Amino acid sequence: MKIALAQIDYHIGNFLENTTNIVLQIKRAQLESADLVIFSELSVSGYPPLDLLERKDFVEKCTKEVHKIARICKKIGVIIGAPSINSDPQGKLLFNSAYFLNRGEVKDIFHKTLLPTYDIFDEYRYFEPNNEFHLLEFKGKKIAVTICEDLWDDQPVESEFARRRLYKINPMDELIKQNPDLIVNIAASPYSHMRSKVKKSIFINKAKKYNLPIIYVNQVGAQTQLIFEGGSMAIDKKGKIIEQLKYFGIDFKIVDLNNLTKNITTTVFEEPDRIKMVHDALITGIKGYFKKMGFYKAVVGLSGGIDSAVTIVLAARALGSENVHALLMPSQYSSDHSISDSIDLANMIKMKFDILNIQKGFDTHLESLSKLFSGLKEDITEENLQSRIRAILLMAYSNKFGHILLNTSNKSESAVGYGTLYGDMSGGLSVLGDVYKSDVYELAKFINRKSDIIPVNIIEKPPSAELRPDQKDSDSLPDYETLDKILFEYIEKQKSPNEISEFDPDLVREIVRKVNMNEYKRFQTPPILRISSKAFGEGRRIPLVAKY
Amino acid sequence: MKIALAQIDYHIGNFLENTTNIVLQIKRAQLESADLVIFSELSVSGYPPLDLLERKDFVEKCTKEVHKIARICKKIGVIIGAPSINSDPQGKLLFNSAYFLNRGEVKDIFHKTLLPTYDIFDEYRYFEPNNEFHLLEFKGKKIAVTICEDLWDDQPVESEFARRRLYKINPMDELIKQNPDLIVNIAASPYSHMRSKVKKSIFINKAKKYNLPIIYVNQVGAQTQLIFEGGSMAIDKKGKIIEQLKYFGIDFKIVDLNNLTKNITTTVFEEPDRIKMVHDALITGIKGYFKKMGFYKAVVGLSGGIDSAVTIVLAARALGSENVHALLMPSQYSSDHSISDSIDLANMIKMKFDILNIQKGFDTHLESLSKLFSGLKEDITEENLQSRIRAILLMAYSNKFGHILLNTSNKSESAVGYGTLYGDMSGGLSVLGDVYKSDVYELAKFINRKSDIIPVNIIEKPPSAELRPDQKDSDSLPDYETLDKILFEYIEKQKSPNEISEFDPDLVREIVRKVNMNEYKRFQTPPILRISSKAFGEGRRIPLVAKY
Repeated sequence: MKIALAQIDYHIGNFLENTTNIVLQIKRAQLESADLVIFSELSVSGYPPLDLLERKDFVEKCTKEVHKIARICKKIGVIIGAPSINSDPQGKLLFNSAYFLNRGEVKDIFHKTLLPTYDIFDEYRYFEPNNEFHLLEFKGKKIAVTICEDLWDDQPVESEFARRRLYKINPMDELIKQNPDLIVNIAASPYSHMRSKVKKSIFINKAKKYNLPIIYVNQVGAQTQLIFEGGSMAIDKKGKIIEQLKYFGIDFKIVDLNNLTKNITTTVFEEPDRIKMVHDALITGIKGYFKKMGFYKAVVGLSGGIDSAVTIVLAARALGSENVHALLMPSQYSSDHSISDSIDLANMIKMKFDILNIQKGFDTHLESLSKLFSGLKEDITEENLQSRIRAILLMAYSNKFGHILLNTSNKSESAVGYGTLYGDMSGGLSVLGDVYKSDVYELAKFINRKSDIIPVNIIEKPPSAELRPDQKDSDSLPDYETLDKILFEYIEKQKSPNEISEFDPDLVREIVRKVNMNEYKRFQTPPILRISSKAFGEGRRIPLVAKY
Repeated sequence: MKIALAQIDYHIGNFLENTTNIVLQIKRAQLESADLVIFSELSVSGYPPLDLLERKDFVEKCTKEVHKIARICKKIGVIIGAPSINSDPQGKLLFNSAYFLNRGEVKDIFHKTLLPTYDIFDEYRYFEPNNEFHLLEFKGKKIAVTICEDLWDDQPVESEFARRRLYKINPMDELIKQNPDLIVNIAASPYSHMRSKVKKSIFINKAKKYNLPIIYVNQVGAQTQLIFEGGSMAIDKKGKIIEQLKYFGIDFKIVDLNNLTKNITTTVFEEPDRIKMVHDALITGIKGYFKKMGFYKAVVGLSGGIDSAVTIVLAARALGSENVHALLMPSQYSSDHSISDSIDLANMIKMKFDILNIQKGFDTHLESLSKLFSGLKEDITEENLQSRIRAILLMAYSNKFGHILLNTSNKSESAVGYGTLYGDMSGGLSVLGDVYKSDVYELAKFINRKSDIIPVNIIEKPPSAELRPDQKDSDSLPDYETLDKILFEYIEKQKSPNEISEFDPDLVREIVRKVNMNEYKRFQTPPILRISSKAFGEGRRIPLVAKY
């Protein structure tokens, strides 16, 4: 049996586009004599549809599209993902389902058993878990159809306190009893730089455990914060990867089931470098956001620092430098090199820029406030004011010319609240909000690996917000290497301050205090492109008023 | 048996304060010869602790506090709520539990069966559902201990598409087999003006169905967006309310189980007017946010419109007018009455205010941008600019004096995106973000029911953002009565545009389009005090990039 793996970038709720793309791939598979073509989880709607699943019109459209697609599947078998109605009047209204289409109609349906409800996943919010098991029979073969988490009964976890076994049932242990010839897994499995290797090992281990080949088809592209790397695979029954589809690109491959059972592999698929993957993920994230929001131009405030430099290079690579505009907005506290470095960078990537000095705006606002503030010392207020004036100018540019403002904050500063609400924390999309400062440096080095695209001075100078004379990040924060390690232990590994024992306890407590007291700022940040397993945003829900 | 209902305002994660309050109530109950005292769901930690439940130190602290409290329960029985560890290595790590404390130790434990995972609830994110049932036996009585949703097996719903029966099990149907004498329900059930009557009927119907008295103890106070109204009750076995505790206030009452079984009620508990409840809920929400964040002063921008007027009155009632400061920030487009009405209001509620004209700031920024914008027409950019300058001044005031900026946007304008990001959409807390404009008028009338606190002119003049000459809301929106009805059908009832048939189809489509295209703005709004069953924020999760 020849099986096509169709790895597509879906757009949530854009049924016309999704169905068109699905139909094109089916026709291509047919032309190339495939017997079966496989699409990813909830492919008809795009994943994750979130609360659109609570709308009758949305669910009805999904079903309608499934039947529309079925009509063209005369000679080929197709597995696609879409919600279906739970006919039991008790329990959640929907199932997360895989439909099997053949001979012009829906021939079979399989429901997801394990519903991830943690981190960014909310599937039990919408779906009833499956508890009945059967195989797909097609052309003399028996196929175990599983949906994403169904093969993740054993979870990889960062925190020692987190559960590895979140479910009381293992769907493959049920399905194996019926002697399948093949495991199919349709997925919408988002990228995390901490999970790339784990993800492969999950499938390899399942193939070995059940002595069965596995075909895994993942979604690719970005849906707001979530980036899907694709990387669909065909694995033989010994656990060897026979075929692997592109990372971060749409792709299509046909494999022969015979080759998967015969174990005749030779190719070795090497995992790209972690920073290259993060780089590509972020570009995919920017591209996806702009395309799906219907925009194509971005504006970025260039400060002369490394965060805005890396952001603008990524934006230029995602959108084309002709579609990215830089604003340089110096004040009296800006050093000369901030401007000259920024100009060098803009020239290097052939990008248009404007310089708007904020000094006069700053002075005018200070004058407006002078009566109220008379006799009071300068403090964080005046620093925030500068940051907010820059946001005003960037947003004015954004409004006037239809550019989306890209936010340049990194995860380290966002964690400790080193940023101004409605100032440098503004933007339509945060590019680096899930990238620790240490990794921002790694990204800069990666960008410069062949030649200096980002001026070396930007990378080498000590980080500064330049909001008061001679300010340095190190005035109020430890060096970023130390800071990032403490943050990782606290945020990703969820350790208590006492357990983060390799650092000065006072420093740890001070950092943790800053993380906790700045939840209110992070509540209002733009959507953050997620590249780790614990990004700020939907995947990390902390009560604002909590005292802990 | 004498049973005390202890209705407390908990602070999430503030174990010292929560335990102190719990112990005080236990001592009081003992002094008043109660046999049993009942606290609300997750009372030890405060509800909802959200992802703090993923932290080992947090869960350990909960358990430690439970045992600390148990030690003082020598002669009295106590039911309190806290998480407990699921000893089965499979399934979620925690249960949402009710602990029974007596004779100085934990004597029994009961786990929640029905875990709400919809709207603002995420309980299956953390908890394994219970599936074993037993009664609490104490002083010769058998008590069915249930936790909140356990009595809500049949859901009230707004949307026709939503499920009434979300669960396959009904815990009371299991517990009744063991012949209990009483049902206890410990709850953390948030307020919604659409659910007040339904909530009572749920308990009344359960009492009648099982022919058993019910004691319901709810949390009171606010946790960021969520407002808990309290209103704990004792209901006799015929379904009559024998005792009811305060709405929106801490309270303590003792009831005699004999009276609950004898059915000797005389008191009639009348439900307050809906708008009075909303008014009190919002004040509770403001109070709770400030107290729990450790702040006590607010700043509000007074525009001369009804939203800021209602917001500032509510703030003054919550915090005291001496702790609320108004900024009036006129521009060339502000009408004279906007200033004079605002001054009248500030004087009426004896509040300090400052007037800061934004014209010079506006001109300075326009000048900065003049080269970039040369030859281009004025548009929404210049309107947003004024709104953002006001936010800059308000935030400068907030930063300098430690006042939290209160946001004044209402639900109607937030729905259609009639607001400026980083402008009038700024603030630490949104007071009216879940109140449709029609209800803002109702609130103003309620505030003025005895005398004109809000100047009549503010209520009667046509709404305007005053961002360009002679602007009126009605230039771009239908009248608010029509708008709010359409929004309610689309947002709360989740109808499709075609199903909203009592209005002009073009108008409906245009409103729906505005709601959908402004998800990106709402993504960055402050936390919104929730008073309905479908507030913007955590309870409504729409993918930003969706096209639908």
